[in-house]
Amino acid sequence: MKEYQFTGGRTPPESLPVQGLIDAAARVLKRRGELLVHYPSQFDYHDELKKVVSKRFEHREGTPLPLEDIIVTTGSMQAITLPIQALTKPGDTIVTEELTYMGSLECFRHYGLKVEGIPLDPVNGMDTDTLEDTLRSLAARGIKPRFIYPIPNYQNPTGAVLSLPCRKRLIELAQDYEVLILEDDCYGDTDLEPVRVPPSLYALGDPQAVLFLGSFSKILAPGVRLGYLCAPQRFLPQLLELKRHGQDAGTSGLSSFIVAEYLRDNLWSHIERHTRVIREKRDTTLGALEEHLGDCATWTRPRGGLVIWVELPFTADMDRLGQLAEERGVRYTRGREFHARGEDIKCLRLSYAHMSHEDISEGVRLLAECVREAS
Amino acid sequence: MKEYQFTGGRTPPESLPVQGLIDAAARVLKRRGELLVHYPSQFDYHDELKKVVSKRFEHREGTPLPLEDIIVTTGSMQAITLPIQALTKPGDTIVTEELTYMGSLECFRHYGLKVEGIPLDPVNGMDTDTLEDTLRSLAARGIKPRFIYPIPNYQNPTGAVLSLPCRKRLIELAQDYEVLILEDDCYGDTDLEPVRVPPSLYALGDPQAVLFLGSFSKILAPGVRLGYLCAPQRFLPQLLELKRHGQDAGTSGLSSFIVAEYLRDNLWSHIERHTRVIREKRDTTLGALEEHLGDCATWTRPRGGLVIWVELPFTADMDRLGQLAEERGVRYTRGREFHARGEDIKCLRLSYAHMSHEDISEGVRLLAECVREAS
Repeated sequence: MKEYQFTGGRTPPESLPVQGLIDAAARVLKRRGELLVHYPSQFDYHDELKKVVSKRFEHREGTPLPLEDIIVTTGSMQAITLPIQALTKPGDTIVTEELTYMGSLECFRHYGLKVEGIPLDPVNGMDTDTLEDTLRSLAARGIKPRFIYPIPNYQNPTGAVLSLPCRKRLIELAQDYEVLILEDDCYGDTDLEPVRVPPSLYALGDPQAVLFLGSFSKILAPGVRLGYLCAPQRFLPQLLELKRHGQDAGTSGLSSFIVAEYLRDNLWSHIERHTRVIREKRDTTLGALEEHLGDCATWTRPRGGLVIWVELPFTADMDRLGQLAEERGVRYTRGREFHARGEDIKCLRLSYAHMSHEDISEGVRLLAECVREAS
Repeated sequence: MKEYQFTGGRTPPESLPVQGLIDAAARVLKRRGELLVHYPSQFDYHDELKKVVSKRFEHREGTPLPLEDIIVTTGSMQAITLPIQALTKPGDTIVTEELTYMGSLECFRHYGLKVEGIPLDPVNGMDTDTLEDTLRSLAARGIKPRFIYPIPNYQNPTGAVLSLPCRKRLIELAQDYEVLILEDDCYGDTDLEPVRVPPSLYALGDPQAVLFLGSFSKILAPGVRLGYLCAPQRFLPQLLELKRHGQDAGTSGLSSFIVAEYLRDNLWSHIERHTRVIREKRDTTLGALEEHLGDCATWTRPRGGLVIWVELPFTADMDRLGQLAEERGVRYTRGREFHARGEDIKCLRLSYAHMSHEDISEGVRLLAECVREAS
């Protein structure tokens, strides 16, 4: 049976620079291949990739990331697990958007954290008034959260962009309540509209109070498994010790060499091509939703990122919908996966960027049939 | 100042198949590159590498590793941290050779394990009589170790090959005392002599009681960061959950694609070329040791692996030696790093495979001067 997989934040195959990566591999292996005989403790395979990371940040934020604060990680998932494993203990509290990346929630649960979800609206992001109430009420109970974990740009799953006033307020509150910020920018630079996002919390606030993380999964491809964490110096010994002796002793040098070699000269031309492909598919998805679900559901119109968040009629039976969709070969990610308390909300997330325009249209049509039948 | 770095188990740059990897990258990215747009939870990037792992095992052991039991890891360090983090708790006991890989010791300490080191002789490996005494005495105190962790082939740092009778005895003892075996074969296939090593504990014993791990760091290059763990099915859910939500969500697909593509057709011809280069350098190192240190030190003559273990005169002052060597640009790894209880033994480990013949000879000559001066 034909499958319509609206799952995972996958990237478009047609914008993967296959020939660019092949050429980069040939150049960099000839020039630097022999450095791969060293161990990560003896040679930093990621010197060139760190420069790409730093310049990428500078391009948007006007100031580079300090190279000496960057840890290259095996995907941005490791940029989340490192600070969580190294800097929290079971029972600690972490404050997140009420809807947030399911992989992060799984990590927080894996390490025994209590998750406090703050409602967000799909345009301005996390509600900072509720954040204040929550921090105050936690403080009254003697609880100081270990981190506030926001995804300010093209929030997953809602696509929200945290507004500038909310960013400033979040930073103030974190400062007042002495809570570190773990800023997840993994959707950074997947801009689908000319409107710029506000500066990062890292750039706006005190960089000593922010751990900033990003990824090459969304702007290049998840399979390169390259992300990064930029952390204040005082945390680096613990984080590096954990990476070295508690996790993997070092991220792939081969992957890092090739990706750095390609992106060094092609980052922004690639991103422009890449986001154009995604934008067209986003528009196809929005059009199909309008055509087939316009009368009974609502959804986000994200300015960036790779996903659309769909709110279904309150009458929708989510179990039934799941069965019906499976019978028709339609896959999506169920709303509750993203919910801080695991509530079975009547929402779902559609990831469209890796699919063909035809499959998007047909998949949404089939999904709409299922929604109608399950409501 | 010229440096002579006898540190780390590095591989020879001249046997790194740079052109082979370039050609493999071009072929595999054209054929499979688009699969990198998927997430590790959606597509197993490592399907081809697992076949290489399984066939490599079959070549030596006569029977393949079950593909469904293999987890590809980010270097074999992750193949150690995964079972330690997932299957032990702080305070648990692990039984190792008294001298063993320092990275593993660091991992065991990181996760709060108590390490019981069993003396080994540099020819036959772990002393299984002492192993029996230790297991009995632990049992009398109500302690059941979580793992026995041996490096049966070309043990690091001693180069010992655990003899067949000792392998059988170790398996029996593990069975009698109901202790799992964590078998580290990371030096497997770095054979420098025609004599074959005995079968693995995994192949000799009950594969349900053995977690077997290996690496591509020693036969190809550390910088590809690819290793593997073969674990009984009953542990896979916990190990995979940890890898996915507690560590990195997946090892580099790009690295895996390229290495699998190259090794699929070239594994044994490459290993033959590679070990020939290492053998010649081992012989140069042994010759230099004989010439310059023959009157005052003893050392191993390993049949495989990338290191030589040197025992210094009992009068050697290890701190003084360290200073003198540093002044002359000579680096080595100090014996205590490998000792289960951190004892400052008068030994050091020389890693020679990445160095030129000239540097090996000159480095050993300088080291000998230092040893004489510090004794």
